[in-house]
Amino acid sequence: MKINIGIVGYGNLGKSVEQSLISSQNFNLVAIFSRRLIKSKFNTKIEFYDNFLEYKEKIDIMLLCGGSKSDLEFQTPEILQHFDCINTFDTHAKIESEYTKLNLLAKKYKHRLIMCAGWDPGIFSVIRALFYAISHTKPHTFWGKGISLGHSDAIRKVKNVEDAVQFTIPNEIALKKVKKGDYDDTLQKHLRECYVTCNILNQKQIEEDIKNIPNYFKGQPTSVHFVPHEKLLKLKSNLKHKGLVLTYFKTKNNTNCKMDFSISMESNPDFTASIMIAYATSVTRLKEQNQYGAYTCLDLPVSYLFEKTKYSKLLRDFC
Amino acid sequence: MKINIGIVGYGNLGKSVEQSLISSQNFNLVAIFSRRLIKSKFNTKIEFYDNFLEYKEKIDIMLLCGGSKSDLEFQTPEILQHFDCINTFDTHAKIESEYTKLNLLAKKYKHRLIMCAGWDPGIFSVIRALFYAISHTKPHTFWGKGISLGHSDAIRKVKNVEDAVQFTIPNEIALKKVKKGDYDDTLQKHLRECYVTCNILNQKQIEEDIKNIPNYFKGQPTSVHFVPHEKLLKLKSNLKHKGLVLTYFKTKNNTNCKMDFSISMESNPDFTASIMIAYATSVTRLKEQNQYGAYTCLDLPVSYLFEKTKYSKLLRDFC
Repeated sequence: MKINIGIVGYGNLGKSVEQSLISSQNFNLVAIFSRRLIKSKFNTKIEFYDNFLEYKEKIDIMLLCGGSKSDLEFQTPEILQHFDCINTFDTHAKIESEYTKLNLLAKKYKHRLIMCAGWDPGIFSVIRALFYAISHTKPHTFWGKGISLGHSDAIRKVKNVEDAVQFTIPNEIALKKVKKGDYDDTLQKHLRECYVTCNILNQKQIEEDIKNIPNYFKGQPTSVHFVPHEKLLKLKSNLKHKGLVLTYFKTKNNTNCKMDFSISMESNPDFTASIMIAYATSVTRLKEQNQYGAYTCLDLPVSYLFEKTKYSKLLRDFC
Repeated sequence: MKINIGIVGYGNLGKSVEQSLISSQNFNLVAIFSRRLIKSKFNTKIEFYDNFLEYKEKIDIMLLCGGSKSDLEFQTPEILQHFDCINTFDTHAKIESEYTKLNLLAKKYKHRLIMCAGWDPGIFSVIRALFYAISHTKPHTFWGKGISLGHSDAIRKVKNVEDAVQFTIPNEIALKKVKKGDYDDTLQKHLRECYVTCNILNQKQIEEDIKNIPNYFKGQPTSVHFVPHEKLLKLKSNLKHKGLVLTYFKTKNNTNCKMDFSISMESNPDFTASIMIAYATSVTRLKEQNQYGAYTCLDLPVSYLFEKTKYSKLLRDFC
C-alpha cells in the first residue's frame, strides 16, 4: 500500500520533493500546503496552509520543506501534533533545544518526527559521528562551492531584503592544510558570498544586518553584493553544491588512517529531496513498532530506510 | 565502570585489538583465548580456548578475532551461547544464512552478536545501503591495493600451504570507467594476487585448489606466486589497505549526483580493531534495552556507538 504524503512549503525543496514523488511506486502525493498562492505544474492539489487539519485521515507523513529560520520552527510543532513529519531543520545551534522540545511533543501526541534529514545536517551528521566513534578525532567538514538554502533563506528574512542567495566557498588554503594534516583552527574554512536585491538606498544597514545574523554569518568571512533582480535570478538558478567530510587520524597503535566522504550534486534541492524521501520509510518502520518521538539521522539504523521484509536482500546486496 | 573484554584468536587482528585496549579508559582486557601456545608482549593473561566458560562472570563482550572460514563459523555459535560477541565475519555468500542461524541462537541464549563489524563488511555495508536508499542505484566498491585478511586466511587452509598472503588490486581501467559513469559488469574490477609458501613440489595442485575456493577466488582473475619463507614474511608485514565505495546517479528529477566514501590505512588490522571496539559500545546499548539477537552494522544507529548519556553532546558536535 502506498504511503500518503503531504508537502508543506513550495520553494525549491518543495518543488523537488513534488517532482520526485510523481509516478512513485511507494508514495502517493496527496496535497501541497502553502501560505502563498501557488500553482503546481504537475496538477498536484494545492491547499492553504491553515487547512492541513482537514487531511488528518488522508496523509501519513508530512514533508516539511520550509526554511529553518522562520518556517520550520513554527510549522514543525504545529503540524507534529497531528501528523508524522520529516524536516531538514539546519540551524546547528538550535538543534539540541529543538530536539528536546519536539521529542516531548511527539511523544505526547504519539507522532514521529525525523528532523535534520538533509545532507548537512543529515547524512553528513551520520558520517561525522561514525568517523569520530572509530577515530576519536573530530572530523573536518567543507561545503561548496554552492548555495546554502538555509543561509539564503536567513538573508531573505532581513528587513528590506527583496531576494537573496548565498554561496558557500571552501577556503582552498584551509582545505589543503586539512588534507596534509596540519590545519589549525585559527584559519577560517569557508567564505560566505551573499547576493542581494533590495529596493532601498540604505544598503549599508542591510549588509550589517546580514553579517550579524547569529548562527549563520556572525563571526564568519562574509561578503555582501547588491545586484539587479535579473542577475540574482540567474545566480539562483545555479543549484549545484558539494560537500566533504574528512578525518586523518592515528589508531591506538600509532598507524595512520584517512576516511573521507564526499558528495557533489547538480541540484541541491533534488539531492535533499532524495534524502527526505529515503527517510520516509523509517517513519513506517518506527510506526510498526509503536515508537514515538523525535529522531535525527543519528538515531536511525540504515536498515530502517528499507522495508522490514527486505532485510535478507539487504544482507545479500550490501553487507 | 569499564566493560570487560575477552579476545578470541591472536593473529594480526587479535594483536591489534589487544594493543588498542591497553590503557583504554572504557575497556578492561581480561584475557586472550587461543588454541595455540602464544605469548602477549603486554603481559595480557593467555588462556587455552577451551577454558572460556570459566570467564562467564568476568567478561562482558568477546571480540572474536579469528578468520571467517574455519574459526568464526565454529567459534561464534559456541561462544555466543555464553557471551555477547562481536565478529568480523566476511564470507559474503554466507552472511545471510549465518545471520539467520546466529540470530535465533542469540535470542535463545539471551545474548547479542554484532557480526561483520569490520570495514567491509561493516562500515562499507552501511555506506552502500545508505547510497542505495538515496540513489536507487547499486554502488560500486573497489578494494586495495592491500592484503585481504579473510582471503589470506582462506588460502592458509588449503592442503599443503604453509603460509600465504593475498593482495587485492583494483583494475585501474574499471575504476576509471566507473568514475566516468560508463562501467559495464563484464569487466572484472579486481585482480587477486596470492603469495604462497609450501614444502612440497606439487605446486600446480595448490594453485588449482586456491583458484577454486568458492566465495573467495573462484571466477575471479587470480594469480598465485610461490615464494620463499623470507619473502612471504616481508610481504605479510605490509598491512596497508584502501577502499572506495562510489555511486553516480540521476535523481528522479534527472539531475546528476555523485557520492563517494574512501578510506586508506597503514594497518588493516589496526583500523579493523578500531571499528570492532567502536561497536562494543552498541552491545552495552542493546543490553540496556534487554534486546537480544544478531545485528549487523546495518541494524545499529550511529548513536549506539556512543553512551546514551552523550546524546546531547552528539547533537552539538556532529549534527
